[in-house]
Amino acid sequence: MINDGSKQREIDKRTIPYKLILEERELPKYWYNVRADMTKKPAPLLDPETMKPITEEALRKVFCDELVKQELDDTTRLIPIPREILDFYKMYRPAPLIRAYCLEEKLGTPAKIYYKFEGNNTSGSHKLNSAIAQAYYAKNQGLKGVTTETGAGQWGTALAMACSYLDLECQVYMVKCSYEQKPFRREVMRTFGASVTPSPSMTTEIGQKILAAHPDTSGSLGCAISEAVEVATKTEGYRYVLGSVLSQVLLHQTIVGLECQAAFEKYGVEPDVIIGCAGGGSNVGGLISPFMGEKLRGEKDYQFIAVEPKSCPSLTRGTYAYDYCDTGNICPLQKMYTLGSNFIPSPSHSGGLRYHGMSSIISELYDQKLIDAVSVEQTEVFAAAEEFARVEGILPAPESSHAIKVAMDIAKECKETGEEKTILFCLTGTGYFDMYAYEKFNNKQMEDYIPTDEELQASFATLPEIK
Amino acid sequence: MINDGSKQREIDKRTIPYKLILEERELPKYWYNVRADMTKKPAPLLDPETMKPITEEALRKVFCDELVKQELDDTTRLIPIPREILDFYKMYRPAPLIRAYCLEEKLGTPAKIYYKFEGNNTSGSHKLNSAIAQAYYAKNQGLKGVTTETGAGQWGTALAMACSYLDLECQVYMVKCSYEQKPFRREVMRTFGASVTPSPSMTTEIGQKILAAHPDTSGSLGCAISEAVEVATKTEGYRYVLGSVLSQVLLHQTIVGLECQAAFEKYGVEPDVIIGCAGGGSNVGGLISPFMGEKLRGEKDYQFIAVEPKSCPSLTRGTYAYDYCDTGNICPLQKMYTLGSNFIPSPSHSGGLRYHGMSSIISELYDQKLIDAVSVEQTEVFAAAEEFARVEGILPAPESSHAIKVAMDIAKECKETGEEKTILFCLTGTGYFDMYAYEKFNNKQMEDYIPTDEELQASFATLPEIK
Repeated sequence: MINDGSKQREIDKRTIPYKLILEERELPKYWYNVRADMTKKPAPLLDPETMKPITEEALRKVFCDELVKQELDDTTRLIPIPREILDFYKMYRPAPLIRAYCLEEKLGTPAKIYYKFEGNNTSGSHKLNSAIAQAYYAKNQGLKGVTTETGAGQWGTALAMACSYLDLECQVYMVKCSYEQKPFRREVMRTFGASVTPSPSMTTEIGQKILAAHPDTSGSLGCAISEAVEVATKTEGYRYVLGSVLSQVLLHQTIVGLECQAAFEKYGVEPDVIIGCAGGGSNVGGLISPFMGEKLRGEKDYQFIAVEPKSCPSLTRGTYAYDYCDTGNICPLQKMYTLGSNFIPSPSHSGGLRYHGMSSIISELYDQKLIDAVSVEQTEVFAAAEEFARVEGILPAPESSHAIKVAMDIAKECKETGEEKTILFCLTGTGYFDMYAYEKFNNKQMEDYIPTDEELQASFATLPEIK
Repeated sequence: MINDGSKQREIDKRTIPYKLILEERELPKYWYNVRADMTKKPAPLLDPETMKPITEEALRKVFCDELVKQELDDTTRLIPIPREILDFYKMYRPAPLIRAYCLEEKLGTPAKIYYKFEGNNTSGSHKLNSAIAQAYYAKNQGLKGVTTETGAGQWGTALAMACSYLDLECQVYMVKCSYEQKPFRREVMRTFGASVTPSPSMTTEIGQKILAAHPDTSGSLGCAISEAVEVATKTEGYRYVLGSVLSQVLLHQTIVGLECQAAFEKYGVEPDVIIGCAGGGSNVGGLISPFMGEKLRGEKDYQFIAVEPKSCPSLTRGTYAYDYCDTGNICPLQKMYTLGSNFIPSPSHSGGLRYHGMSSIISELYDQKLIDAVSVEQTEVFAAAEEFARVEGILPAPESSHAIKVAMDIAKECKETGEEKTILFCLTGTGYFDMYAYEKFNNKQMEDYIPTDEELQASFATLPEIK
């Protein structure tokens, strides 16, 4: 007889609610810095002018002081969360950890599926966790404003919200095709008081240069980063902030994993497999870090899976090398899994996860074979998203749906093998501003594009040579 | 010295969290039927063919059996919530009751502001509370599917979600201007498997008739209702369901007020003023009913305020009379505050709250002067919405923002008078699909339209004569 998990589910329902909710007083008071537990640390950032490890002083021109400290600190295990940030977190955190009883039943699987839902806030994603931290440190330093880039728009929205709360100016460079295709994302940012400029623009030198060379370009994240950094470094009282990739961002996002740990402990649950979608790495990094710490310290073992799109496969098909983080080559260089800073994913790929590189922490952990990575196609991702939405009642973001797809695949395998694996994934956000992509899927007009080996080789050829 | 409330807030923060959350096991197990405690009950529905009180049998052609019972039952105080519905509620309920510490601080008011947040689900509003109940009873009766209408799209989305969960067919008639202006709402419904038809359409007799007379009409709720009812009564195994106005809907929505009561009791809070936005009355009715019960039984006293738009002012400028609920005059007649079933609010008015009539329960309570009503202009509503969003971090629906506006006004009065009123309002939903309206507001292109006395008199002249 097949074990469809139904008996165990009825037993579980007696002690485990649908939503494993922590109380506000159970909110983690520290972020966890996984680098402190890594024997081999991520490689240092390089200064693009000297190609040597960048100094604190040079970084301070770009980022505000406290964030520079966090970026460079690879030894302090726990970083206290300031009270003001904790107060802001209380508006939408602790975020629910949800037992997917309905999905399990639909799949008829003995696997136990849990997901951390980070979409229950107006920014619609986990991005707000780092946005408020970065805005707070900028405000605390007496700065006037911050600049940033945004692609899919979640990060820009999160930053606009954090800045409006703290009364800080916010200038967002939004990738031009996104600016045009997602006017409503733009309006949310404007409603929160941010100024939004389509990138590339004529407001920066680098934008002018790119437009002169490619007048019809629809923009890219790497290009928008260059513009935002240029404005920040040239404007009095401004600094630049970034929504992913950097180690400081992964640090702030550990609130996600720490809350999962606390909720699991409260209800006596132990996960076997932990899954996150991977673009720049902030979500998967924040989710897995505290569990990875246990693994690195030899206390427990887990399987970690980073899921990326086949159209932008930095971990599964990229190369581990020093590369530029932006198109204009004005940001520090980072050693990471990369597709080359000139790589631009197919426009047919929807949503985020379009960045050419990957967090240096995730890259190093992957290189040490402590994390697995898989890539999935867009159409199968939306099919999983729809199946999930119909039973769990949450319309997921395309990004998050990469993790859903793999979690469902594993749950289906368990149905075959009878294994009762406990799966955790992060539902990073909601898809309310991605209905254009859902419409394409509903109308069976969605396309997948997988770069060829030749395209990737050509892109790798542009990597900088580091001695 | 002015009492800006800051001292009391610091004290309150020690015992009252930002989010007053109930546990799943604290979910109310019964809906509360306020009619049972009313000495003078709402007038009975009339059969449009006989103009006599409608029989259970006649109603069963339109609604499923259990819902007919609930519609006609004005004596049973507590109606048990079936286990299957409770299980569905657990996916997104109990909904948070939030102490608006940040808003209070921003306003510098000694008033204590609480709001029940009903937008934390993919339908984006409280509508899901009744959608799942109505879909459940339809499924339980062995029906194949349901039809409905939707204007702003929240109800249609909620019903599509509930039907997809229960594997029930769902046909939505969507007011044509909404169908065209809100393609993304339409896609959410399609993602949940519903079929969506712009109304008026050629698929029904009434639609054909309306299109013949008004080929360029952009549609109305009253017209979409007629189409949905026609299809339901003519299709084997189908019934019609409605998202507001009816007493059964108010009954299901009492889960909102009951959770507020439970959370207040848990934390030792007593509200003075309770505020809800009013379109058809389902939200304000569900919110206030349990508190009204206490008032009717002489146990406690509260001030209740229903807030409606000046462009569709059924309570504040309507007349209390029997009227048709739909344009095609095929639905039962209801005694209610109404602007006349041919009244169509100005297209410049955004969002819902566009219905010409009002729940018979709310109408009767208002007529007995147990509820106050005020009307507000659209531009001031969006200004309040923006101010709220920037400090509370939730982008509210235009409908909900009517309640926000009045709550903020009262809080500002408290600042003048020094009163420490405790205010509760319902934040019925989020505005993610209303960015078109926010864009108009951001660009200072928003218009208000208030119907003239002559227009209303002309509309009242079309009311049916009842002997």
